[in-house]
Amino acid sequence: MNELDVIGIGNALVDVLAQADDAFLTKHGLAKGMMQLIDEARAQELYGVMGPGTEISGGSAANTIVGVASFGGRAHYVGKVRNDQLGEVFIHDLRSTGVAFATPQATSGPQTGRCLILVTPDAQRTLNTFLGASSRLTSADIDQKVIERAKILYLEGYLFDPPSAQDAFRAAAKMAHAAGRKVALTLSDPFCVGRHRAAFLDLVEHHVDILFANEAEICSLYEADDFDATVPRVRAHCELAALTRSEKGSVIVTKKDAHAIAAAPVAKVVDTTGAGDLYAAGVMFGLSRGLSLPVCGQLGSIAAGEVISHIGARPQVPLAKLAGALIP
Amino acid sequence: MNELDVIGIGNALVDVLAQADDAFLTKHGLAKGMMQLIDEARAQELYGVMGPGTEISGGSAANTIVGVASFGGRAHYVGKVRNDQLGEVFIHDLRSTGVAFATPQATSGPQTGRCLILVTPDAQRTLNTFLGASSRLTSADIDQKVIERAKILYLEGYLFDPPSAQDAFRAAAKMAHAAGRKVALTLSDPFCVGRHRAAFLDLVEHHVDILFANEAEICSLYEADDFDATVPRVRAHCELAALTRSEKGSVIVTKKDAHAIAAAPVAKVVDTTGAGDLYAAGVMFGLSRGLSLPVCGQLGSIAAGEVISHIGARPQVPLAKLAGALIP
Repeated sequence: MNELDVIGIGNALVDVLAQADDAFLTKHGLAKGMMQLIDEARAQELYGVMGPGTEISGGSAANTIVGVASFGGRAHYVGKVRNDQLGEVFIHDLRSTGVAFATPQATSGPQTGRCLILVTPDAQRTLNTFLGASSRLTSADIDQKVIERAKILYLEGYLFDPPSAQDAFRAAAKMAHAAGRKVALTLSDPFCVGRHRAAFLDLVEHHVDILFANEAEICSLYEADDFDATVPRVRAHCELAALTRSEKGSVIVTKKDAHAIAAAPVAKVVDTTGAGDLYAAGVMFGLSRGLSLPVCGQLGSIAAGEVISHIGARPQVPLAKLAGALIP
Repeated sequence: MNELDVIGIGNALVDVLAQADDAFLTKHGLAKGMMQLIDEARAQELYGVMGPGTEISGGSAANTIVGVASFGGRAHYVGKVRNDQLGEVFIHDLRSTGVAFATPQATSGPQTGRCLILVTPDAQRTLNTFLGASSRLTSADIDQKVIERAKILYLEGYLFDPPSAQDAFRAAAKMAHAAGRKVALTLSDPFCVGRHRAAFLDLVEHHVDILFANEAEICSLYEADDFDATVPRVRAHCELAALTRSEKGSVIVTKKDAHAIAAAPVAKVVDTTGAGDLYAAGVMFGLSRGLSLPVCGQLGSIAAGEVISHIGARPQVPLAKLAGALIP
């Protein structure tokens, strides 16, 4: 059996990045730094007023899985696109980085999903997601044989937004655990947590081994005002939680330990899109190779630092090269 | 009558940029720095082996016209895309920069054209163009009323590759001259010149007022080994020739004068795609506003310097802002 390091399941999206100023966000009712779900009509309206765009494959878990492959990991991605031009772009960009992909393309229904991203001069990104074809992922797209091959199953919280994808999510988690594999979840976004808090709490308590979250997300999950108050709670629920704190770095919490990890130095932060996605890639690649938790965290910091130094949410240089001697 | 500064006609293309090394170019038989026409099968084959891509609207004359608009000029573009996703992207990116566009989209035939661009670590770009729908431009797409409104008609040499576009090219030039307007041409690429040398020589001698070319292109046109030998020849043919020489800057040649223009300082050359296109934008914007030739050249240098400092062939900051007091 050809073992995989990580398999990821998520909403398959192509990012459309454009520059915007704060006045634009205010005028169009956009909450800076957040992800908002939009329908096709709103997507067209917003696209119509956005500046010129750059199209780059995205999708939170897909970015992570590309990051795992960039570290040299064996990686597989599951997500739904349509048989249209942007769907072809999405699949090409995955496979060309060495990620395996086999989810059948939708041949009817909405177009390939898009995330309209406004990047403000402070390098913050504001996401507007039209799920499109990605919402058509169902449990029929989950191949038990592939799930069983992967050391870690990685699920994005955003996948809870399309109802049929929730079923795929739960089915995959069940298969992974039945095969003795680890299940990892990223909370994705504080508003996403707010939309699905009860379900996420149940998952985190009973089904998730490895949790990724930033400060706002973990505070939203436990409805806590203070990050420190969330640590004992998450410790009681998960085997491992990797909690990111922007420029303050991250903390990796286990039942008995907590490791503070520094952020990687970045000359100029250009676009924070994908920072959390790539952090998760580094940590999971390290875990899948049995590296120590501080090294896993460092790999996460390196990957996040690379991706925020340029436009777009996927690495532009091989992360294995940046990691150097950290990877034995 | 609402007068336009510049109207451009060209092959409407979406660029797909990917990083590649010299070994990749050699392996796939690609001549560095050049533009090669490819058919759909070759486009698919090459795309299949390219790394992950970034999609950005391109097309040589379209880049120039966006540059004119970015300087604050009134600009119009004519080119053919299909009614597909990449066609929508192309139109959006033009209009969102203030460029007027009214060419009907093709509703059948090949997809929107694409230019597969390999960017090597030395910032050189190697272009592989699948013309697609852009080859369906015909003289029926040329609106005499709009051509007559523009001070300068700008034509890209690449437009000579699709046969029906040649007719559109000649029809537009005739209309512009009949209305007392100037006709500008860029030679586009030394191989393009080689493919159409006799036709280009005839155009330059009899129909072109303003010529843009780089050293390799002007030498190819006159089959000269030496740049200096081309200057008296082009001077005899055109009212004005703006000849670019990469980091050595450019020379603007008229019947009686020659102005040497310095290149703009660039901290790091990232991707030379669009350098010539944006140089032409600066010069034509200056000419359309009656600025002196040295200032026109400086505007060209500023625009070229901006576009080579990042990935993609269109400006990422308003060129009017970079020009500052050079524009009265």
